[in-house]
Amino acid sequence: MTTTLTEKMYHSLIGGKPVEGTSGTTQAINPATNEATGPEFTLISEDQTQQATLAAAEAFPTYRRLTPKARAQFLNAAADKIQAAGEQIIATAMTETGLPEPRLQGELARTVNQLRLFAKVAGQADYLGVRIEPAMPERKPLPRPDLRQVKIPLGPVAVFGASNFPLAFSVAGGDTASALAAGCPVVFKAHNAHPGTSQLVGAAISEAVAEEGLPAGVFSLVYGRGTVVGQALVADPHIKAVGFTGSRGGGTALMATAAARPQPIPVYAEMSSINPIFVLATALGKDDEALAEGFVTSLTGSAGQLCTAPGLLFVPEGPAGDDFVERVSAALTAAAGSTMLTPGICSSRVEGEEAWKTLDGVTEVARGTAGSTENAPAPAVYTTDVATFLSTKELSEEIFGSVCLIVRYGSEDELHRVATGIEGQLTATLHLDPARENLTFARAFVEDLELKVGRVLVNGWPTGVDVGDAMVHGGPFPATSDGRSTSVGTLAIDRFLRPVAYQNLPADLLPDAVRDENPWSVVRRMDGQYTLPSIEGDA
Amino acid sequence: MTTTLTEKMYHSLIGGKPVEGTSGTTQAINPATNEATGPEFTLISEDQTQQATLAAAEAFPTYRRLTPKARAQFLNAAADKIQAAGEQIIATAMTETGLPEPRLQGELARTVNQLRLFAKVAGQADYLGVRIEPAMPERKPLPRPDLRQVKIPLGPVAVFGASNFPLAFSVAGGDTASALAAGCPVVFKAHNAHPGTSQLVGAAISEAVAEEGLPAGVFSLVYGRGTVVGQALVADPHIKAVGFTGSRGGGTALMATAAARPQPIPVYAEMSSINPIFVLATALGKDDEALAEGFVTSLTGSAGQLCTAPGLLFVPEGPAGDDFVERVSAALTAAAGSTMLTPGICSSRVEGEEAWKTLDGVTEVARGTAGSTENAPAPAVYTTDVATFLSTKELSEEIFGSVCLIVRYGSEDELHRVATGIEGQLTATLHLDPARENLTFARAFVEDLELKVGRVLVNGWPTGVDVGDAMVHGGPFPATSDGRSTSVGTLAIDRFLRPVAYQNLPADLLPDAVRDENPWSVVRRMDGQYTLPSIEGDA
Repeated sequence: MTTTLTEKMYHSLIGGKPVEGTSGTTQAINPATNEATGPEFTLISEDQTQQATLAAAEAFPTYRRLTPKARAQFLNAAADKIQAAGEQIIATAMTETGLPEPRLQGELARTVNQLRLFAKVAGQADYLGVRIEPAMPERKPLPRPDLRQVKIPLGPVAVFGASNFPLAFSVAGGDTASALAAGCPVVFKAHNAHPGTSQLVGAAISEAVAEEGLPAGVFSLVYGRGTVVGQALVADPHIKAVGFTGSRGGGTALMATAAARPQPIPVYAEMSSINPIFVLATALGKDDEALAEGFVTSLTGSAGQLCTAPGLLFVPEGPAGDDFVERVSAALTAAAGSTMLTPGICSSRVEGEEAWKTLDGVTEVARGTAGSTENAPAPAVYTTDVATFLSTKELSEEIFGSVCLIVRYGSEDELHRVATGIEGQLTATLHLDPARENLTFARAFVEDLELKVGRVLVNGWPTGVDVGDAMVHGGPFPATSDGRSTSVGTLAIDRFLRPVAYQNLPADLLPDAVRDENPWSVVRRMDGQYTLPSIEGDA
Repeated sequence: MTTTLTEKMYHSLIGGKPVEGTSGTTQAINPATNEATGPEFTLISEDQTQQATLAAAEAFPTYRRLTPKARAQFLNAAADKIQAAGEQIIATAMTETGLPEPRLQGELARTVNQLRLFAKVAGQADYLGVRIEPAMPERKPLPRPDLRQVKIPLGPVAVFGASNFPLAFSVAGGDTASALAAGCPVVFKAHNAHPGTSQLVGAAISEAVAEEGLPAGVFSLVYGRGTVVGQALVADPHIKAVGFTGSRGGGTALMATAAARPQPIPVYAEMSSINPIFVLATALGKDDEALAEGFVTSLTGSAGQLCTAPGLLFVPEGPAGDDFVERVSAALTAAAGSTMLTPGICSSRVEGEEAWKTLDGVTEVARGTAGSTENAPAPAVYTTDVATFLSTKELSEEIFGSVCLIVRYGSEDELHRVATGIEGQLTATLHLDPARENLTFARAFVEDLELKVGRVLVNGWPTGVDVGDAMVHGGPFPATSDGRSTSVGTLAIDRFLRPVAYQNLPADLLPDAVRDENPWSVVRRMDGQYTLPSIEGDA
């Protein structure tokens, strides 16, 4: 397999085959040096996207009918291939993204484990949501027909890679894994910031497709300009859903394109979140230093470029709060900036901070030191009060990077007004002492917050998203385009499915999942009750 | 309770209280006579809609936190009230809609049963989709936090009543029942064709709200002009989802409004379907007369104004097919038209048929007789071939009423091309003899069709939609705006929910549904396995 990028030029991998793009080339920039690095990658034209979408459409009928076991085997094979190429992938990603090796090691492990988790989900096949209501010929006033329901995949999915997770939210990331597990071929639009990393991972998936004997169009990796190729993919009639992680501007543009199609399709865009942390008074006065350091670590990790990085910190007014802010300042002042993902992301971060400086009622509290590389601005913390926060729209907009706003609050009522006034978020976090807290207030506050977020945390930090059954990485707009879903964790598979019912079909014509003998041993809802065993004798 | 409409004028019921509209009045038209009938109903202005949406928003925090038992009790109380007012409701609906008494009796029973079914769903509370992953402090490389997931209601829902089901898809219909069961207050926009029926049912629900001691804003019924009040409701920031049954034009207009909001919201619009019936050769030659009569009954029932009425009949070329078409013609010729719902619907039906007459390659096969009332056009059947069908866009557009196109086909390949060429549909139906059929083809054909529809039937008729766990009344656009859902059956509740995760919350702060002791005894997914019992000792 491709374990190193030795050629001078690489291309899109459409159905596993290199396709030379006709719209110029791109090259990665090492953000630590601002220098171009690695081979060139040709960019496809708008017309060339159709090769990938057509291949996906042709692969769909075969791919969607794989048994759970075969689909699981494919996902595990992809995981194996990526793991085998891990060393080269990490070396390439370090150069292309400026992220440090331990972070990328962890991300590679998460990516591989995520594929294996979705292999388990695909194999277990409970996501099919089988519901069976056997016929009741004697029912009055009308007989009940035999009705069987199962979820089927939507069709080919276009996935857009994120810059900030070059592995776990990129070529073989959560969107790809959940779409493939659901039975949907994937056309993956690489993020131009890490083309070499994308090539290595894309080649690994393509090899798994070939080795498992699947139709080649199950997976394609394309390089292109987002405004051209991205929009063309979302507008393409063969594409039936979209997964995206990126900016609010990018996500809403794709939403508009998808809604304007002759046949509109769902867009799952994870876009923008400032992840408020609420420090309640009872959390203070025990180990404020550890709390402050925990916060600064969460804020500055990966240069603040995590979707769940805490951009808002609510601290009570008064001496205890003053003392805590001082500790945050001390920890922040000791922190150094690290290389951001791209020069463009760094510029936006710097400009966002400059804009805050012009706002009335917002003052700088502390600043760390800039890193020694290019694109490594100093972490910084600002402060304001609740009234200014609620009345200043700019303060609710995400600055992607290590910049945080401390909002000092005076009362529980102010917290309630914040919780009801903020936009949708991925997370909200409370710090409190359960033994001393006013639990009536805290309970009501959790109820306020859950209406605005996908995940509520207590006494922890929102960064470090666990990938499992119970995770929700979602939330109301603008955190995501569609708060009814998650992009991390096994529930993500539901995004790419829709239910179909079969009425009075002869056994020979039924899909396997809903046959009496339950050949895949899936959980089924029989007459309103969950059940595992097979049905006997009512065919 | 209100059992009869004795006043000269009625108003919207906002939070149970009459609110006089300031934008004129409307009155029902008896479609059998074209005469105005019953009292006048005042229409609210765009501004007045905010009274209803604000009341719903204020009711939401209390209503969503009701226990499963309390929510079930409310839905059952609403069912009781509607049943108690049944006689007056049916008498009023007969005058307002032209539908015959037995049909409305059946629809009332379905409406009441549907509320009771959703009471059961709300009480059982499995729809919460609880997933629990207890903490694993020892997990390497990172400890696993305690994570608990549950689905919460989206918020107030705007529901638009359909003309063709004045009870089961109207004020207390499937959208209302499923939204209320999910914990969402409902603002119901009455269909102006049956305002009196709406008033009686709305009053019944409002009385149940009051008797159960719920916040008044849990339910409001408003009368207004669709283009003004309907659009205002969908644009209102308090509204978080939309349920609609009606025309493609109406549904797509609401979709556009919802997508253009600062915070876009989901629209569940059930719009347009011509429900193809495929008669395979093996179905013919046994009891063609019964088959032909079954088809004509399905086509002409309720004057062809059912969402699942079969507007397309595929019949093989050759003598057996010719004979079957003759039997359909005979049955159709013997059928009489019945009163349509409104003069406007009747005009569209007549104009749609007139347009077919101008199309090349389409010829009339048979025509029944017009009914004796106003607005009761004769049922009619036309015919064409597959090539003409596939190349003539107008033939894929729904004509709402008893008009059907018979398409003669020559080969299995032509059927495959039809199945892959048609737009999204609610249903597709096959007639065949399983003992004689080429099952390889039939299986492949079912697989073609399931990609285009929400429900596949064999040897039955799509009209008469069973309301249960396994039903899907949905399908890809333009059958609905969102094929990932159903508007009939218990799965409809999923439309109004979104998942939230709780990470490391102290037991006191957790919502009841995800507490260790499982106080509501709901099915839970624990570490990836479904389970009913409570967790012991891991809090």
